[in-house]
Amino acid sequence: MAKTEISTLGEFGLIKHLAKHIQLENPSSEKGIGDDAAVLNYTGENKRALVTTDLLLEGIHFDLTYVPLKHLGYKAAMVNISDIFAMNGTPKQITVSIGIDKRFGVEDIEELYAGILLACSRHHVDVVGGDTTSSLTGLCISITCIGEGEVGKIAYRSGAKQNDLICVSGNLGAAYMGLQLLEREKRLFQNDKNLEGVQPDFAGKEYIIQRQLKPEARGDIIKALADAGIVPTSMMDISDGLSSELFHICDQSKVGCNIYEDKIPIDYETASMAEEFNMNLVTAALNGGEDYELLFTVPLEMHEKINEVKDVHVIGYITEAGAGKYLTTRDGAAIELKAQGWVHI
Amino acid sequence: MAKTEISTLGEFGLIKHLAKHIQLENPSSEKGIGDDAAVLNYTGENKRALVTTDLLLEGIHFDLTYVPLKHLGYKAAMVNISDIFAMNGTPKQITVSIGIDKRFGVEDIEELYAGILLACSRHHVDVVGGDTTSSLTGLCISITCIGEGEVGKIAYRSGAKQNDLICVSGNLGAAYMGLQLLEREKRLFQNDKNLEGVQPDFAGKEYIIQRQLKPEARGDIIKALADAGIVPTSMMDISDGLSSELFHICDQSKVGCNIYEDKIPIDYETASMAEEFNMNLVTAALNGGEDYELLFTVPLEMHEKINEVKDVHVIGYITEAGAGKYLTTRDGAAIELKAQGWVHI
Repeated sequence: MAKTEISTLGEFGLIKHLAKHIQLENPSSEKGIGDDAAVLNYTGENKRALVTTDLLLEGIHFDLTYVPLKHLGYKAAMVNISDIFAMNGTPKQITVSIGIDKRFGVEDIEELYAGILLACSRHHVDVVGGDTTSSLTGLCISITCIGEGEVGKIAYRSGAKQNDLICVSGNLGAAYMGLQLLEREKRLFQNDKNLEGVQPDFAGKEYIIQRQLKPEARGDIIKALADAGIVPTSMMDISDGLSSELFHICDQSKVGCNIYEDKIPIDYETASMAEEFNMNLVTAALNGGEDYELLFTVPLEMHEKINEVKDVHVIGYITEAGAGKYLTTRDGAAIELKAQGWVHI
Repeated sequence: MAKTEISTLGEFGLIKHLAKHIQLENPSSEKGIGDDAAVLNYTGENKRALVTTDLLLEGIHFDLTYVPLKHLGYKAAMVNISDIFAMNGTPKQITVSIGIDKRFGVEDIEELYAGILLACSRHHVDVVGGDTTSSLTGLCISITCIGEGEVGKIAYRSGAKQNDLICVSGNLGAAYMGLQLLEREKRLFQNDKNLEGVQPDFAGKEYIIQRQLKPEARGDIIKALADAGIVPTSMMDISDGLSSELFHICDQSKVGCNIYEDKIPIDYETASMAEEFNMNLVTAALNGGEDYELLFTVPLEMHEKINEVKDVHVIGYITEAGAGKYLTTRDGAAIELKAQGWVHI
């Protein structure tokens, strides 16, 4: 049989390709593939069940050289919890499947679980099931999160309308710069011929390291929006990078966008690290990923209300379909945004 | 830190150990770890959501030397669907996560998906989400199935009562003997020094091969029981082997059991294969696993009704707590059952 390299399609292309064959037949399957979570109607009334899942593989998604198992567990649970928040929902349960190879002892798995349970307790999420198995080939973690949403308040990627304000929570690029730093220290350590085991110096870099190793799902923002009476017209979490996520929202909403370089929130540690690495700061913020901040749109009329929500930043606005996706730089130039996705394969 | 080998606990021991730290805090988490699926209350009324998940890793759960990708997809979906039936529920949705390494092309993943979708269409299940990622270390499949159950009809492992009849559907040991045959042919092929590539001869063995490669979840039995007005007092599917599953039901129900060797249903292909391999047939039926038949208990008063349900066999009865778990052999001897679990690690 002819063999098409998966790289010719890329992650999103492969998903789209496979999804073509998928038809939903149950009335309870309200929304399938294509958002942060599936939407299931198990009540017939106003509540909906939300389901999301993630697969994390050693060597691809994490490097145990510098990621402690407790942090890994925390992050694995948190990124799934984040996907439920990204639907404007409330996470309630997770299932945890792990494949374990011979390197790991019971204490290791306890550490991993301690991290998972800590993340869960932060957001009142219950571990309700899973699967544990041996692995020949490294650690493997698959988590599914189930949550609850309300009809009319669930935020899909497809709801952005022309003139809506584009908002992000927190700041961007920090997790990516934290990863760059950890990778550099790993190389230095591996090249340490004298095997003196010099401990890496992370002083002044604690924040970006933490953003990489211990991301926090923004349940606080979901609560703040609800308290302010704001229902986002579209929303997703930023796992692949701002640029990539904007493409998803614009494509699914059939709109364009314009964002402003000087409005993108960036922490000073991120900026100083980018300078040290001689990297373009905006590129890091646009394409970095793994910040797990929320990207969402609200109607223009919400302008004053949204400005009062702590730690939310308006970075641009939605334009009409066909207008393209643009970044206005500090010097006023409009450059077209490029999507970047999954480049593992 | 002290390192405790995971093998000292075993699969079930490890799960029990980890579950000690898990407390449920959401009212909607009705039943967590410890059954075929979790039970979630997303309605407040009579319906419950059921959730189950499985992780399949190359080299541990499947061998691509003799398992076609389409069959693998079919089986991966089917074993999850089977877990929802094993709660006396109806499967509705699955999420599919796959980790793919460089050996695989788009057509391969299409084959895998074709199998998944075929299994789903057999049972009217929708694929509603998932995750695709690259893998450095072989194929990895994680499936979560969500279904629906009704309060009062959901069958837990913990509901068996003294004097209940123990029933199994179909026949046992076939999938295990199919695996033995496939493994033998693989060894012969690998030892074929002349590289003549002699094709294996599976004539007369089609049934056991199919039981291994293409198991069928027994939705038909669930329907037949419902039609007959029978609500099992306990139920689970047979994935690890009859003996192991009886231990789960007896331990969780706090009862003993007595089953009869001559009542255990066995197909003649299974029997003839065991003879060819010089293996003990009862051992294969008790410990073989992967048949995905249903093991369940019904009240003694259902005796006549259950005898009328096609392809269901009464193999014994539940005894009082502390009475132990026994097999009565053909010559009338009572031998104590041994649990066998997961022996991968």
